[in-house]
Amino acid sequence: MGRTSDAKERLIQGAMALIHARSYADVGVQELCEHAGVKKGSFYHFFNTKQDLVLAALDEWWAFAKERNWNDAFSPTRPPMERIERFFEINYEQNAAEFEQSGQFSGCPFGNLSIEMCCQDEAIRAKIHAIFDDVVGRLKQTLDDAVASKILAPMDTQETALALWAYCEGVLMLAKSRQDLDLLHRLGKRAVRFLQASGRKAT
Amino acid sequence: MGRTSDAKERLIQGAMALIHARSYADVGVQELCEHAGVKKGSFYHFFNTKQDLVLAALDEWWAFAKERNWNDAFSPTRPPMERIERFFEINYEQNAAEFEQSGQFSGCPFGNLSIEMCCQDEAIRAKIHAIFDDVVGRLKQTLDDAVASKILAPMDTQETALALWAYCEGVLMLAKSRQDLDLLHRLGKRAVRFLQASGRKAT
Repeated sequence: MGRTSDAKERLIQGAMALIHARSYADVGVQELCEHAGVKKGSFYHFFNTKQDLVLAALDEWWAFAKERNWNDAFSPTRPPMERIERFFEINYEQNAAEFEQSGQFSGCPFGNLSIEMCCQDEAIRAKIHAIFDDVVGRLKQTLDDAVASKILAPMDTQETALALWAYCEGVLMLAKSRQDLDLLHRLGKRAVRFLQASGRKAT
Repeated sequence: MGRTSDAKERLIQGAMALIHARSYADVGVQELCEHAGVKKGSFYHFFNTKQDLVLAALDEWWAFAKERNWNDAFSPTRPPMERIERFFEINYEQNAAEFEQSGQFSGCPFGNLSIEMCCQDEAIRAKIHAIFDDVVGRLKQTLDDAVASKILAPMDTQETALALWAYCEGVLMLAKSRQDLDLLHRLGKRAVRFLQASGRKAT
């Protein structure tokens, strides 16, 4: 049983590494099996398709993002604006650590897969949609708290949370296109400044 | 000669359609040839590799974006803030028109290819970098004009232009992930509001 469940986990970890570094379409079942050191029969014991494996990988990424990053950034013990600052800082730290390890700045696994797959695979699109909604919900709650404590002026917090998440993903894309971690850091810091500025007037 | 140059153009147009709808890795030379109705020998007469064809497709997309969209939006006859508004409006109109035609909201061809390829292909990454720099330069010039006419307070216009372009690409990604053109429209309209708000105070 131990070895069996190791094989499943190795397949998931391998999919996360290879697909994050390259793309969904570029990584086939054969390569995923070789990377994990499992036979094709084993693969199909755990997963019906590459899609199934990637849905499992998305669950692991999501669990990791929540546990390692989002729960820390969005801890209600932090003042609201510090939560947003920390969210962008962790985003930078995470990518810097991955760059240190792999020599490559691969960006957001959710954003990458969303761009590649959301017009081609409804199950993958729906899962990423749910993940995006989770983080947008956390951003909205933070903005609601900031408005309630009069740190920000009243605003449509749902729309602003969507705009903030879009900004975060866009900064990741632009910085990735330049392989420029410093840009990720600098533009991340601007998020709170934009908010504070726009929060001065109700939107 | 007429038929020969038609074949080259058909290959480029086909690459633009198929890769925009799916991805670089998912579309092979065989399918590109079948779609264009040309033999493989013809393909290799014009292009050494799929990469070569995609670099040519990027040039065509860029020429199209400049001629159809950016030159209109960034016309110096428009007041600066109207240029930015128009830039986001055209972005929406373009995607809405494509959705009308294809039933699919595929987003930005540059952003899509950047996310997929910039860690894997230096020539594609460098070309997209140059395209991104072109649009960031136009946004910076617009912000410089707005600051010079005291519509916006003094700011680091280069960094703000980068932030604005990141926001634009992020909005495209998020709206694409939901296949939600209305979100693209609404969040686009927020760009000018953010700027005006943050422009009130020098950054």
